[in-house]
Amino acid sequence: MERFVLGLDLGGTKINAAVLDPAGNVLSSAREKTEAQLGAEAVLERIVQTGQKALQAAGIGAEQLYAAGIGSPGPLDWRSGVIIESAHLHFDNFPLGPRLQQSFGCPVFVDNDVNAGTYGEYKKGAAAGAEYVLGMFVGTGIGGGIVTHGRIHHGFSRNAGEVGHMIVLAGGPRCNCGSRGCLEALASRTGIVRGLRKAVKDGYKTSLTKNHGKRLEEVSSGALKEAYQREDKLVRKAIKRAAKYIGIGIGSLINVLGPEVVVLGGGVIEALGDEMLPIIQRSTARVAFEYSLNGVNIVRAQLGDDAGVIGAAIIAKERFETQTGGKPPEAASEASR
Amino acid sequence: MERFVLGLDLGGTKINAAVLDPAGNVLSSAREKTEAQLGAEAVLERIVQTGQKALQAAGIGAEQLYAAGIGSPGPLDWRSGVIIESAHLHFDNFPLGPRLQQSFGCPVFVDNDVNAGTYGEYKKGAAAGAEYVLGMFVGTGIGGGIVTHGRIHHGFSRNAGEVGHMIVLAGGPRCNCGSRGCLEALASRTGIVRGLRKAVKDGYKTSLTKNHGKRLEEVSSGALKEAYQREDKLVRKAIKRAAKYIGIGIGSLINVLGPEVVVLGGGVIEALGDEMLPIIQRSTARVAFEYSLNGVNIVRAQLGDDAGVIGAAIIAKERFETQTGGKPPEAASEASR
Repeated sequence: MERFVLGLDLGGTKINAAVLDPAGNVLSSAREKTEAQLGAEAVLERIVQTGQKALQAAGIGAEQLYAAGIGSPGPLDWRSGVIIESAHLHFDNFPLGPRLQQSFGCPVFVDNDVNAGTYGEYKKGAAAGAEYVLGMFVGTGIGGGIVTHGRIHHGFSRNAGEVGHMIVLAGGPRCNCGSRGCLEALASRTGIVRGLRKAVKDGYKTSLTKNHGKRLEEVSSGALKEAYQREDKLVRKAIKRAAKYIGIGIGSLINVLGPEVVVLGGGVIEALGDEMLPIIQRSTARVAFEYSLNGVNIVRAQLGDDAGVIGAAIIAKERFETQTGGKPPEAASEASR
Repeated sequence: MERFVLGLDLGGTKINAAVLDPAGNVLSSAREKTEAQLGAEAVLERIVQTGQKALQAAGIGAEQLYAAGIGSPGPLDWRSGVIIESAHLHFDNFPLGPRLQQSFGCPVFVDNDVNAGTYGEYKKGAAAGAEYVLGMFVGTGIGGGIVTHGRIHHGFSRNAGEVGHMIVLAGGPRCNCGSRGCLEALASRTGIVRGLRKAVKDGYKTSLTKNHGKRLEEVSSGALKEAYQREDKLVRKAIKRAAKYIGIGIGSLINVLGPEVVVLGGGVIEALGDEMLPIIQRSTARVAFEYSLNGVNIVRAQLGDDAGVIGAAIIAKERFETQTGGKPPEAASEASR
């Protein structure tokens, strides 16, 4: 019997799933809304449904899975599969891995969603072939993933990679985490919009108020891009400022971590990458040492939404193999019976 | 014949050496002035002399060394043993490892001086037993060393760990590296003294001007400690501010790297650690996520000046063993003849 691996990506608004063959090719994929407001049990059910939809689309049954992997917002414990906390998803010490294991009848491996996305880009995307990778995903927040010696770096905390919560401007704007001057508070979509809102309050004009009011509610990355393209001065300034801070963060991380490839993804970069990347690169070069920047590529993510599911699936494949001592799924599965 | 390993630590003002037995115990040590102004060749000769002095003190000959290790200021290439640049030591692509190899007649392994110090503390000092360690050494500058999965993290740049050159206050004071707002510009002895000098220029008073003039030349960490203890208000404020920024840097690095132990060393910490550590810990706790700070120890280095030579010696021992496939020195040495 041919065996497959399922990759899942749990987001605040949507769930993605994909089935991969033993060579790592995507056979099918599926997507559902998360409906986070329905609570942890309902979200769990929707995750299972999304996975089953992907299995159906690939024409295979759950008994043909030898493992599944899921990327989830954290903090979480990748060893036990427990989500420590995820306010938006109403998770509170929720045993996501063990519960999914019951549903799918195969080992399920959990990791941080951004780690999974970074790992996907490392294995199959923009960072393929590098040994040291820094992933930075700029959207509602800023998340990060670190690959060292070809492995995801979890650290003692099991939750390393929180690059959005490096302080780059001590005493700066308040972050959702409670600190001041985090990179996320300055350069995420939330941070950008908050800066714009303050400017509007101070009397500056932006075309965004027309559709979003003075409180600039629900301004998407796409809306920011449109405003940027119609030469909205305030938005241009805000985007350039965010890009400058992202470069300052990346430059600092190049000095500290020495990555070979920096992969930039997330909604803000997907919408405004062309505009931001040159500014990010210049800002990075002002901070990073020349000898540490030499040969480093700062690139856009290539896999888009697929990065998370592909990364989660490959993480599952590799951890399964580590657990079974490198045996192929068929043999290991026979042996464990 | 019993075989030994030599550890060397090259500093801007002094050179330390120590001979270690196979179990990692220090048998003897020696120290000389660097005399950096005499140039690279003269410094090389002084390194060799310091090593020989330590060998003599241990009563052994160079032929009994199976390997030597040296920690040096960088940037450098730990693989080739070449010091890329070290302005103060007049090194410019200087093949320190290969040249010492000729002098001592055994393999010589080179690493960054702060990496060696961190590794010494990891193997024999304040961080013994941890798997993930962050070393931060606060003196004239701020250097760092990172141990992940029990290995020094060099990264693609081969020069990772430059924690003094994370930007914590974008647009802040100019750093020697050319950037603005680096941790080193705010919290190293150089940064502290620069801040005091500016305050004096602005009309503030400090007892330090009595011995050091208004330009506060050659203010040592010891002089800062004395001023702190005699309740010099300006100095107290400057030291507390530096401690706050060190905590901001450590908090950021806990979020990004997830270390288990943070080891603080260097001249400023040796002099003012008792005063600074509580402030550093509070400041760290304001930045680091609770789940990432949980179980983390922020401690002072234990080995003082010995950390560098012990670390360099153990690095040499381990790399030698890796190269020879784990064989003990006697057997490997016979085999290579």
